[in-house]
Amino acid sequence: MELSRIGEFGLIDRLQKLLPAFGQPVVVGPGDDAAAVRPAAGTLTLLTADVLVEHVHFDRGIHDYEDIGWRAMAANISDIAAMGGRPGHALVSICLPDDVTVEQVEEIYRGMAGVAGECGCDIIGGDTVASPRDLVVSVALTGEVAEEHMVTRKGARVGDRIAVTGQLGGSQAGLAMLRLLHEKTLDTGALPPAERWDRIRRRHLRPHPRLRAAQELVRTGCVHSMIDVSDGLAGDLKHITDRSGVGAQIEREKIPIDDQTRWAAEYLGTTALALALSGGEDFELLFTVAADAAPGVLDQAARKAGLNVTLIGRVQPRKQGLTILGPSGEEKPLIIGGFNHFSG
Amino acid sequence: MELSRIGEFGLIDRLQKLLPAFGQPVVVGPGDDAAAVRPAAGTLTLLTADVLVEHVHFDRGIHDYEDIGWRAMAANISDIAAMGGRPGHALVSICLPDDVTVEQVEEIYRGMAGVAGECGCDIIGGDTVASPRDLVVSVALTGEVAEEHMVTRKGARVGDRIAVTGQLGGSQAGLAMLRLLHEKTLDTGALPPAERWDRIRRRHLRPHPRLRAAQELVRTGCVHSMIDVSDGLAGDLKHITDRSGVGAQIEREKIPIDDQTRWAAEYLGTTALALALSGGEDFELLFTVAADAAPGVLDQAARKAGLNVTLIGRVQPRKQGLTILGPSGEEKPLIIGGFNHFSG
Repeated sequence: MELSRIGEFGLIDRLQKLLPAFGQPVVVGPGDDAAAVRPAAGTLTLLTADVLVEHVHFDRGIHDYEDIGWRAMAANISDIAAMGGRPGHALVSICLPDDVTVEQVEEIYRGMAGVAGECGCDIIGGDTVASPRDLVVSVALTGEVAEEHMVTRKGARVGDRIAVTGQLGGSQAGLAMLRLLHEKTLDTGALPPAERWDRIRRRHLRPHPRLRAAQELVRTGCVHSMIDVSDGLAGDLKHITDRSGVGAQIEREKIPIDDQTRWAAEYLGTTALALALSGGEDFELLFTVAADAAPGVLDQAARKAGLNVTLIGRVQPRKQGLTILGPSGEEKPLIIGGFNHFSG
Repeated sequence: MELSRIGEFGLIDRLQKLLPAFGQPVVVGPGDDAAAVRPAAGTLTLLTADVLVEHVHFDRGIHDYEDIGWRAMAANISDIAAMGGRPGHALVSICLPDDVTVEQVEEIYRGMAGVAGECGCDIIGGDTVASPRDLVVSVALTGEVAEEHMVTRKGARVGDRIAVTGQLGGSQAGLAMLRLLHEKTLDTGALPPAERWDRIRRRHLRPHPRLRAAQELVRTGCVHSMIDVSDGLAGDLKHITDRSGVGAQIEREKIPIDDQTRWAAEYLGTTALALALSGGEDFELLFTVAADAAPGVLDQAARKAGLNVTLIGRVQPRKQGLTILGPSGEEKPLIIGGFNHFSG
């Protein structure tokens, strides 16, 4: 159905029906000048925003509408998780070109509501407007965190171990495979069977914010700094070291990379290391922990969350810079790649 | 300077320098995965979002960059004011085409910071991304309100008087004059002197949210429902009556319209009434008050805020619908015009 058939307010009514009933803290839901929520006593309110723009963050030929919604919400939830918080309430602003149908907007919402529901947060407002050309999905999300559990990018200390959840590079590998398929640079018949890259495809299209792992990790009390991997391991490690005023050394052989990513790297003519360092959007957690933290503590937290945690390096004094250690002990400066908007 | 010269993170650094120092409730400012603020004890948190899209909400030929920033922030603050709240913390997501310079992005921020500073709120985070074609400015804003002072669209009661602050139609009249100038459909020499339309021009380009008036009004305790006029008097009155399950009658002759708007209506070949009913973006407050409220109470609140308040009608039972009373007592259905995204 064309958007013009039901208009702005008809669309808003339909979208509101897709939203589940709200929890008790929501005093005023969508449909007023603003939503109103009751903040939990004794917690800090976290605030984050991420915007996805067509042709920059997604392409409608590669990502379906539900993927676009899922990814927009997941990126925000991941930011709240990386502070040690739980997501609360989302505001969703969508700019819609006139070739988007009512059903497609509903799919975007279904994708957002899918990951929001999984992570226990509500969509309680936003804005729905026309766009002359490109589809834009802008999400702002609140969260809450007990002050003593909050972890920022700033707390890394010299001597800390550097750790990461899950595996890296998969999202970028999945995207590159999807692009290849979309651009049909190969006959479809020549593409490898789905089972060679189904997991990395899904890693890209439907990332799962590491909310539970983050909660378990901050409860150990030994996490000093944390970030979610959205710009690639190298770029995000630099965010931590810049904010903390330290340097870092990571060990190349310890970076966790799964088999499908390794396979795809070869297939795509790149290296798995490049995908992990510069790929981004893995939404794993990169964090530093006290050097004297009991080795079992992290494993236990990871096990509770059903994820691996891998120690990949250590924090060093700022003057030693950001370096990567090769398998035979050679140390090189870490090149910061990753996506940079407007990058020249 | 081109954005590509300093890149995404260089731009973020420069923008952060434009932001004033934060108040005590900000625990983590921009530059982390999320910002963190300490909610005021005993208040509700308000949440609102508005997005402005080039060619839909503004045109770079008509609006300068500072106007665009001002208007984006003002629209959000106005929503918080209309709930009876005070604005708190803003997240700003900007999608930038590559013809926008660093200095122009700074102007957008200066505009936002201008009205934010005037209204006592801070910009504490957001997202800055590339856009293939159109400039998009998406703002999400928190606010706080004591629960007993919160006023929604929902509380209008049969018998309430309907009132509005300031004057209506000026923003739309100012925009139409700006468009005329921009399109050069007339020789510039033939355009009327600036003093005939300088105030409505400014009404459009630099709207001032009625924050102080809203605060004074909710403190009287007799305001039952409230909305800010963003879709035009008729459309916004309908939002109140729909949500409250009531009807309303307004008196045509009582709608407050200033001289420049009346003059511009004639000049533009329309009526001042049409501008007031359907023009929108006046960001005045439309509200209903208890019929037995002492007449002096509203005047006193208005005087404190330096604004006029005009009684323009009354709330009637739903079955009597939305009507407008002419000068000789004739009653007609109120036509809902106003801007509707995707409207067919």
